[in-house]
Amino acid sequence: MKSKLKAIPGSIVAPRGFLAGSVFCNIKRLGTGKGSDKGQKRDLALIVSEVPATVAGMFTTNQVCAAPVKVCIERAQKGVAQAVVVNSGNANACTGKQGLQDARKMTALVAKHLRMPVEHVLVGSTGRIGVKLPMANVRNGINEAVMRLDNSSENAAHVVEAIMTSDTRPKQIAVEFKLGSQTVRMGGICKGAGMIQPGMSITGKRPSASPLHATMLCFITTDTVTDAKTLRAALHEAVAQSFNRITVDGDMSTNDTVLILANGLAGNREFWVRSPEFGIFQSALNHVCLELAKMIVRDGEGVHRVVTVRVNGAKTIPDADAAARAVANSPLVKTSWHGGDPNWGRIIDALGYSPAQIVEEKVDIGYSAPGSRKVLWSLKRGQPTKATFKKLCDAVAPKEFDLHIHLNLGKANAVIYAADLTEEYVDFNKGDLSDPTSLGG
Amino acid sequence: MKSKLKAIPGSIVAPRGFLAGSVFCNIKRLGTGKGSDKGQKRDLALIVSEVPATVAGMFTTNQVCAAPVKVCIERAQKGVAQAVVVNSGNANACTGKQGLQDARKMTALVAKHLRMPVEHVLVGSTGRIGVKLPMANVRNGINEAVMRLDNSSENAAHVVEAIMTSDTRPKQIAVEFKLGSQTVRMGGICKGAGMIQPGMSITGKRPSASPLHATMLCFITTDTVTDAKTLRAALHEAVAQSFNRITVDGDMSTNDTVLILANGLAGNREFWVRSPEFGIFQSALNHVCLELAKMIVRDGEGVHRVVTVRVNGAKTIPDADAAARAVANSPLVKTSWHGGDPNWGRIIDALGYSPAQIVEEKVDIGYSAPGSRKVLWSLKRGQPTKATFKKLCDAVAPKEFDLHIHLNLGKANAVIYAADLTEEYVDFNKGDLSDPTSLGG
Repeated sequence: MKSKLKAIPGSIVAPRGFLAGSVFCNIKRLGTGKGSDKGQKRDLALIVSEVPATVAGMFTTNQVCAAPVKVCIERAQKGVAQAVVVNSGNANACTGKQGLQDARKMTALVAKHLRMPVEHVLVGSTGRIGVKLPMANVRNGINEAVMRLDNSSENAAHVVEAIMTSDTRPKQIAVEFKLGSQTVRMGGICKGAGMIQPGMSITGKRPSASPLHATMLCFITTDTVTDAKTLRAALHEAVAQSFNRITVDGDMSTNDTVLILANGLAGNREFWVRSPEFGIFQSALNHVCLELAKMIVRDGEGVHRVVTVRVNGAKTIPDADAAARAVANSPLVKTSWHGGDPNWGRIIDALGYSPAQIVEEKVDIGYSAPGSRKVLWSLKRGQPTKATFKKLCDAVAPKEFDLHIHLNLGKANAVIYAADLTEEYVDFNKGDLSDPTSLGG
Repeated sequence: MKSKLKAIPGSIVAPRGFLAGSVFCNIKRLGTGKGSDKGQKRDLALIVSEVPATVAGMFTTNQVCAAPVKVCIERAQKGVAQAVVVNSGNANACTGKQGLQDARKMTALVAKHLRMPVEHVLVGSTGRIGVKLPMANVRNGINEAVMRLDNSSENAAHVVEAIMTSDTRPKQIAVEFKLGSQTVRMGGICKGAGMIQPGMSITGKRPSASPLHATMLCFITTDTVTDAKTLRAALHEAVAQSFNRITVDGDMSTNDTVLILANGLAGNREFWVRSPEFGIFQSALNHVCLELAKMIVRDGEGVHRVVTVRVNGAKTIPDADAAARAVANSPLVKTSWHGGDPNWGRIIDALGYSPAQIVEEKVDIGYSAPGSRKVLWSLKRGQPTKATFKKLCDAVAPKEFDLHIHLNLGKANAVIYAADLTEEYVDFNKGDLSDPTSLGG
């Protein structure tokens, strides 16, 4: 079955039966760290399904894991949820037992208002680390937010705003596709700009051989009918190919979370991993996750250029991944991208110190327009080509380009969506000493 | 036996029987990339012993390894050398067969002039990657440099200058100590400012469990009597505790090299690893390497602050090392150091995503003056202490301080000498598009 994906306006309330609401309740102002309130007046949001939904989540594998993430890992396993409460301005990370109590309290407040089991409420937080949540403000915020819930696109847009921290732009998407004779919709929003190199898993535990790698939060809604196991499989695959393949600064956050709620109101026939419908659903989810993930890189702190690093011909998949990440996170490579400098020496140097096996005499390095196969090679088999410096400079001048690396040792490939390193990134992250509450974050 | 180490003036010609000479032969000018000729007029140097010397070397474990490194690995194994020829401005890396021929040719030219076996001549290069050496200039340079050889401290100072690239300051040291009744001298010079996170080994091959991590070059001379095996053991230990424990930007170079020549002219009794004299010699060598290594970090590209990251109480030594390197290389931690921001949230975040095992509730984080045991703790057992923001800011305000991290999980320790990340680093490394020959480096 072929998927025909149609972009539609809106985001999380585009699918049937989802409501959104948000408020400003003075969480951000308690610690007005740089970027925490760039005119973004909201800091608490609710996403609610009219009926209980199937849920799946992927969570940071950082060993230092925020309280809301702990709560979500536990509840998402059970496969059912109906609401998500999210705050920005405070990560509720490294906040000890109090933090965990506060996260649970947030869900309990929502459950009470909406008359649903507390286990059906999930929670997300982003912002400074190590500062206790101002629970009186949070309580007022939730009281007010539940009164504002509706399915207007205006409210959904406000929710996007409410989860932003150092983000400069809202990040949202919605699509529509057919499953059988039914039209299914899917919408998503996300945030994230710094501390970005997610490495998420279903359990928050690291797969032993996994690459170890912001806060990024992503909330996806869909009205498809599906079961938890199928939804989990699809989300795992989609995140592996999107959020887990981006890097802004190589720092993995304590709070990374992706949640998807599927409320079944589309009324399609249920499907499983082996059903033909699964492929269509997976493609839609892959598309939504990848587009949102790329929005994060483009809006990364201080980012001027976005580079898709494509490694081909590695001996193994972990090698391909390690090679791509070494290049994508090398300060010298990233500063050369910022300078518009087609410097292959730094690229091959990073490949050489990566854990991946490489053979200098076999390495090809080249550039193309995003997604294009027309590659201008600067290095072939370890030796410079005749491409002129001018032409190479032109290839790396656009705001977005692809970097192609062929190791010519095997058949394994990997893609990493990366960004340059700029003076603005450094300046932005130097910290704001005028604000003691920024201590942790 | 206790070592009494005395600092003495000078560097590589302080020990008996060593000569130095250097020239400008237009290697740097061929590609005047940023920082390549900041008034540093010399680009080729010779260090020569009057008699054949015992030699040991440590070399980059980057899989992309420059031609001169390949030549040195081969020759240093044999244990005897008498001269070293070094150029700056061109790394002779990624230069294929021609590069290897050129490196050998450099040693052959020196050998011919000085009438010694070509195998007794070693070679080092630093500068841009992927540009062929201008051999006519190199030949002229060598012809001239051999005529200038003498043991004047002026010449030695010029050699330091001749090996500099983006370095802003010369880096040199000399010490004197007693082995039995004889006075032994040791002198060293080094260079390095960017692409700095060496991980060197005797063979240039990675120990399987080793941490994977400038160009940095270091040349040490001593007049002690010793055999190659003993010298190799001492150098391995000294480098493991010094150069292999520094990081400026986390990028490991293709050219990192440390060479030590011991010409025996002090006439001390020969010693072995188990002799009492070995401890004295080892301490002297450790001191020389560590002081030189710290000079590299202090003079790192754009560096404002130097931070010694001390991890204690890790479960294993690889864990201690991985934890320290994750913190030392985190862009968010490094920018907070630049800002003078005592941000423990970013530190514990980096610890959490490092491959090292950590338990959030057990982590202590604090600061002290360099080498002091008087620690001001900001975090104890995962929770903020009562140290005021003002006091913590004061602790991270000096140009150099120690960061103490206690994991409280075991007994393994590690130290990494690290630097902040500044706007100057980014600006410096953006590249100079006006200069096509800077393409590779």
